[in-house]
Amino acid sequence: MSAVDPRLSINQGTIKYADLATALRVTVEAGVPSIGLWREPVQEVGLATAASMLTDSGLRFSTHCRSGFFTMPEGPARRASIDDNLVAIDEAATLAAAGAPGSAAVLVLVAGGLPEGSRDLVGARERVRDALGELAPHAAAAGVTLAIEPLHPMYATDRCVVSTLGQALDIAADFDPSVVGAAVDTFHIFWDPDVLDSIERAGREGRIATYQVCDWRTPLPADVLLGRHYPGDGVIDLAGLTRAVVDTGYTGDVEVEIFNADVWATDPLEAVRRTAERFAASVSPALAGR
Amino acid sequence: MSAVDPRLSINQGTIKYADLATALRVTVEAGVPSIGLWREPVQEVGLATAASMLTDSGLRFSTHCRSGFFTMPEGPARRASIDDNLVAIDEAATLAAAGAPGSAAVLVLVAGGLPEGSRDLVGARERVRDALGELAPHAAAAGVTLAIEPLHPMYATDRCVVSTLGQALDIAADFDPSVVGAAVDTFHIFWDPDVLDSIERAGREGRIATYQVCDWRTPLPADVLLGRHYPGDGVIDLAGLTRAVVDTGYTGDVEVEIFNADVWATDPLEAVRRTAERFAASVSPALAGR
Repeated sequence: MSAVDPRLSINQGTIKYADLATALRVTVEAGVPSIGLWREPVQEVGLATAASMLTDSGLRFSTHCRSGFFTMPEGPARRASIDDNLVAIDEAATLAAAGAPGSAAVLVLVAGGLPEGSRDLVGARERVRDALGELAPHAAAAGVTLAIEPLHPMYATDRCVVSTLGQALDIAADFDPSVVGAAVDTFHIFWDPDVLDSIERAGREGRIATYQVCDWRTPLPADVLLGRHYPGDGVIDLAGLTRAVVDTGYTGDVEVEIFNADVWATDPLEAVRRTAERFAASVSPALAGR
Repeated sequence: MSAVDPRLSINQGTIKYADLATALRVTVEAGVPSIGLWREPVQEVGLATAASMLTDSGLRFSTHCRSGFFTMPEGPARRASIDDNLVAIDEAATLAAAGAPGSAAVLVLVAGGLPEGSRDLVGARERVRDALGELAPHAAAAGVTLAIEPLHPMYATDRCVVSTLGQALDIAADFDPSVVGAAVDTFHIFWDPDVLDSIERAGREGRIATYQVCDWRTPLPADVLLGRHYPGDGVIDLAGLTRAVVDTGYTGDVEVEIFNADVWATDPLEAVRRTAERFAASVSPALAGR
């Protein structure tokens, strides 16, 4: 078995059906040093307990996933979303403080799609900016970086109206880089003709809040949300993208987040081990070689 | 029944299972003045016969669909592709001459995806540029405009490495606008944060070789190629995009190209009539109002 990369973090989405205790246990058992958590399994045990479990695990904490979903117009649903995002910011701060040294206080934000019955992408995008304006002061006070995650354009209308890294950076530009950054996820942005320039820009502007890797291949599954693959099992130039990220000076953890029914059906320890092996083969050389 | 828009063209892909005779007949019978043809049904009857049938129909010819698929490295497969593209250029010229006044000599080009086993999108894109360089003299001599069609990024690796209108324009920039332009298709580009700027640029640079409309909605079907819908049945801001195209001075036909198993299962005359009705409701006001 190859050595586990010291910068690898398992995003809990990769082992979706593992509860928090299991997720922490298998990550430790596989020798992976860091984990990105999801809100639902944290809330299942309660934040204080989750923080204590994380501390006991000795793992670093790399991101909190995920919040956002604030493209709706003003009204009770929007207020509820903003309130929930404020809670998520506090969760991220607590968990980052509970993780091992090197943990990151990063909250990943998925913007949300078009409101029901709307065709107004421009308006929805403006409301993303407005929401960040409301959340930024609380994030700054909590020491949390909000990571705008551009999602692949196939999700633009039903999940995330932010579709490119350049667009995320344009939105983030109104805010301090320590408060609003971007999530750089290979699956979502590899196709972009401007991807290398955008990564360079993201680094230069201090906006790479997290770097996530997984792979793409076709045909896409019937549920296009679940088309993510182990690093190296698809056609993304992970080495090239990783070199571009490293060249910006990014020194943080590198998360693997895979939504895939077959991976989810795998025993979670086995899934984490496979992730670590694939990562060592397809990503580590580009990380180490810089 | 609403009046049929005088700029509407039925792309034969909308009635995929109709042979050429049927496609021409139902388009005429529905009162639609123009048609975009596909190579396979034309070749089925032979080019000369197809041209004569087109002339007899009295229809305008709006585009020839489709050629391209030249991302592979040098070798016999690439030579065969280039040769076939040269034939397609001649077909487009012949059909445009056979169509009613106002016909357009436009050949739509889908670039192709990554070659088997490759992760090199940048290289594949360079080979698109190289292929255009080989085809441009023949297209110029034949009076045919090559329309680079950016396809939605979900097709970037297996079908078309050109994913945005801006990227298509960057590639086209090396060539005369009468020889290399772009296909502006709402389905493929509506999600792009830069779409309105790119349409304005395409018009300014004289590159809008064809404008095609259809709609997008989610969830996508299991075969994501077939997720195209009648105009108005989805969430694309067709009015806004159409105004942007018209504002550039584009005066050509507007094609409706729908790949959709349900539409294909509809009687072709009925499918063309429905297309004309939906077009009149969702696109014509934006065309007429400018």
